[in-house]
Amino acid sequence: MAEPFRIAIAGLGTVGAGVVEIVQRHGDLLEARAGRRIEIVSVSARDASKDRGVDLSAYDWKENPQDSLENIDAVVEVIGGSDGPAYDLVKAALAKGISVVTANKALLALHGLELAQLAEKNGAVLAYEAAVAGCVPIIKGLREGLAANKMSAVYGILNGTCNYILTKMREEGGDFESVLKEAQEKGYAEADPSFDVDGIDAAHKLCILTAIAFGVQPDFDALHVRGIREISGTDINFASEFGYRIKLLGIAHDYDGKVSQSVEPCLVPVESPLGTIEDVYNAVFVEGDFVETPLFTGRGAGKGPTASAVVADIIDLARGHKIPAFGIPAASLKPYQDMDIGQTVHSWYIRLNVLDQPGVIADVSAILRDHRISIESLIQHGRDPEQPVAVVLTTHDARRSSIMEACKEIADLPSVQEKPCVMRIEEL
Amino acid sequence: MAEPFRIAIAGLGTVGAGVVEIVQRHGDLLEARAGRRIEIVSVSARDASKDRGVDLSAYDWKENPQDSLENIDAVVEVIGGSDGPAYDLVKAALAKGISVVTANKALLALHGLELAQLAEKNGAVLAYEAAVAGCVPIIKGLREGLAANKMSAVYGILNGTCNYILTKMREEGGDFESVLKEAQEKGYAEADPSFDVDGIDAAHKLCILTAIAFGVQPDFDALHVRGIREISGTDINFASEFGYRIKLLGIAHDYDGKVSQSVEPCLVPVESPLGTIEDVYNAVFVEGDFVETPLFTGRGAGKGPTASAVVADIIDLARGHKIPAFGIPAASLKPYQDMDIGQTVHSWYIRLNVLDQPGVIADVSAILRDHRISIESLIQHGRDPEQPVAVVLTTHDARRSSIMEACKEIADLPSVQEKPCVMRIEEL
Repeated sequence: MAEPFRIAIAGLGTVGAGVVEIVQRHGDLLEARAGRRIEIVSVSARDASKDRGVDLSAYDWKENPQDSLENIDAVVEVIGGSDGPAYDLVKAALAKGISVVTANKALLALHGLELAQLAEKNGAVLAYEAAVAGCVPIIKGLREGLAANKMSAVYGILNGTCNYILTKMREEGGDFESVLKEAQEKGYAEADPSFDVDGIDAAHKLCILTAIAFGVQPDFDALHVRGIREISGTDINFASEFGYRIKLLGIAHDYDGKVSQSVEPCLVPVESPLGTIEDVYNAVFVEGDFVETPLFTGRGAGKGPTASAVVADIIDLARGHKIPAFGIPAASLKPYQDMDIGQTVHSWYIRLNVLDQPGVIADVSAILRDHRISIESLIQHGRDPEQPVAVVLTTHDARRSSIMEACKEIADLPSVQEKPCVMRIEEL
Repeated sequence: MAEPFRIAIAGLGTVGAGVVEIVQRHGDLLEARAGRRIEIVSVSARDASKDRGVDLSAYDWKENPQDSLENIDAVVEVIGGSDGPAYDLVKAALAKGISVVTANKALLALHGLELAQLAEKNGAVLAYEAAVAGCVPIIKGLREGLAANKMSAVYGILNGTCNYILTKMREEGGDFESVLKEAQEKGYAEADPSFDVDGIDAAHKLCILTAIAFGVQPDFDALHVRGIREISGTDINFASEFGYRIKLLGIAHDYDGKVSQSVEPCLVPVESPLGTIEDVYNAVFVEGDFVETPLFTGRGAGKGPTASAVVADIIDLARGHKIPAFGIPAASLKPYQDMDIGQTVHSWYIRLNVLDQPGVIADVSAILRDHRISIESLIQHGRDPEQPVAVVLTTHDARRSSIMEACKEIADLPSVQEKPCVMRIEEL
């Protein structure tokens, strides 16, 4: 009989409690699959007295998770936060050669390279399937399932909260603030929603996927990040009229060694695979040289799916599977080379809020012409002389830098009432 | 430096040649990912003189693949066929403790248990990611990514050829035979299409997924299999009218240890996740107790995706990953316990070809009533006295056995001109 695989769980929020629940409910099943018993040795959290819906009496209670790093094979870090106790614990464990299973995307995005190096140096594994896309095994799919491919792009809908808000804004016609409030009441958005709605959560995930897909050092600072706060109901309606949905997309491309990474709201065709992903669902696409964009879809988060992904990592470790954190040895990860995002070319959606006066369109058109931007379509609904009206136009392919400069000039026109809302159109 | 991982490739059709191409093109990338060089030692195929678009001069040519089983770590079996040389080669390799990578779903479905036992007994690995759903890492996703879950259902569109034919029949209005011919000309269907269109290929794949998902011995004979030959353009049109698409679905359920497995054409809602999977695309859904139906989608087959999956398995082996063929030790796989498929309950689509005479509907309704089957809707378009017309009805939930008995009686009515076309409706 193989020795049990001994773990400590640090953090007993919904994910930590979910891991305990799975290990308790499926003891025999996990043993059959892992080839050895999974044994929880200790747990730790801030408040020992809180009822978490699972029986913790069989486990050692550690006040300080650092004290759990003895006589275990792996520690499950579900404390959260890119720094502080989570970071300290993971570093201490890896330094001792103890493998780590974590759901902590911020930690990986910000300290991934250092932690991957530390893990390798000490013969430990740093596993983090739960960090991206909940129950969808995208880390495994990318790092192992598609390992035969040189990958050129990875992109998708990486944040369920934003996708839920954008879906509801369209279906129910609410504005951002009211739909956000509803999402918070339903538990789909945090009390402080900025990590989600400002694109940071999606950016953490994209940073990790980029490192694996292209074999580059994770570099969170290189990401171009913009959230969905400024998307209005007007934009959602215009997008529909043009045959598009607005989605917060994370998109990474490898241009012969130079990488571009962006998280920003984009217009995608209604009927496209990304356009049909609604509500809290996530979807990730990968372009490899021997495969055509395999798709992974699933609910982005939640207790069950995230805990399920954590336990899958534990089983892999118990089976003895070892793989470098980003798929290749940390020393082989290429230094991140940034593609100047201003040089990337897309078609664009521009919404202006203008006073309905003669000559406005002529002024706007002249600015676009001067920046060599070609208009594909233009819509102005209704007429309301001297009042602000929305004018929406879409462009043919144009450089991001040209669009941004042109929109800055347009914003300075006296009849333009607010900053133009600009979004990339992606025919993915 | 780690020793190279030495492989022999048996079979040089499109997949075998694709594996050679990937190993040649991505030598350094695969080495970084696998932690050691992947080295092709020998190749074998029937015709040594044929040009396969890849340079084979650096490899030993073996007339008989059995002669390649010396000094290698793994053999890649891409000969095909459930018996004969492929079966003999895989058995011989595993008996020698040499791991096997195969794309051979028929082999796994028909001899999976024996081969899994042989592999374990001799410390070898039997890997077959390429057997199901081409580039989509569904075997890995199910066996590793979702290993924390007790699974209750696995289902999906498992055959790209059938999905292509059904999609084209709807879009272009052709009948089965003409669309099949077109698919054959485009290379989407074999000259002998029966493996695909009669559901056997999908059944092989479902048999494998069932074994992994539920931890049961693969038992191909237990499958209820029906293909798409009898689907007419009339059915496609009526299905659309009712808000459905016709899809060849493989569906396996675990009812507390009793398993049902069927491959048959089903009606699914147009807007459902399965209803939107068109053309040659495959999709697999899994229901686990901690995850909600994660979805895997991708092109079902083709040289690149299949070779990509084969090479992913090779990399796993080179990394030293070991896992039992069906996720748990072969000795732990439960004997297959069949759920009597006649007892399963669904709603149904029934199309009749009847002479347009007074009283026909009354006769049909009476038979259904006698079998306690409740009609949900009934459509008869047009009127053409004494000529055959199509009558289509859908039922509320009813046992399969009752439906089959009722339809047998209906077929015997004098005004009914041909065997009723009966299909399950799945609101998946």
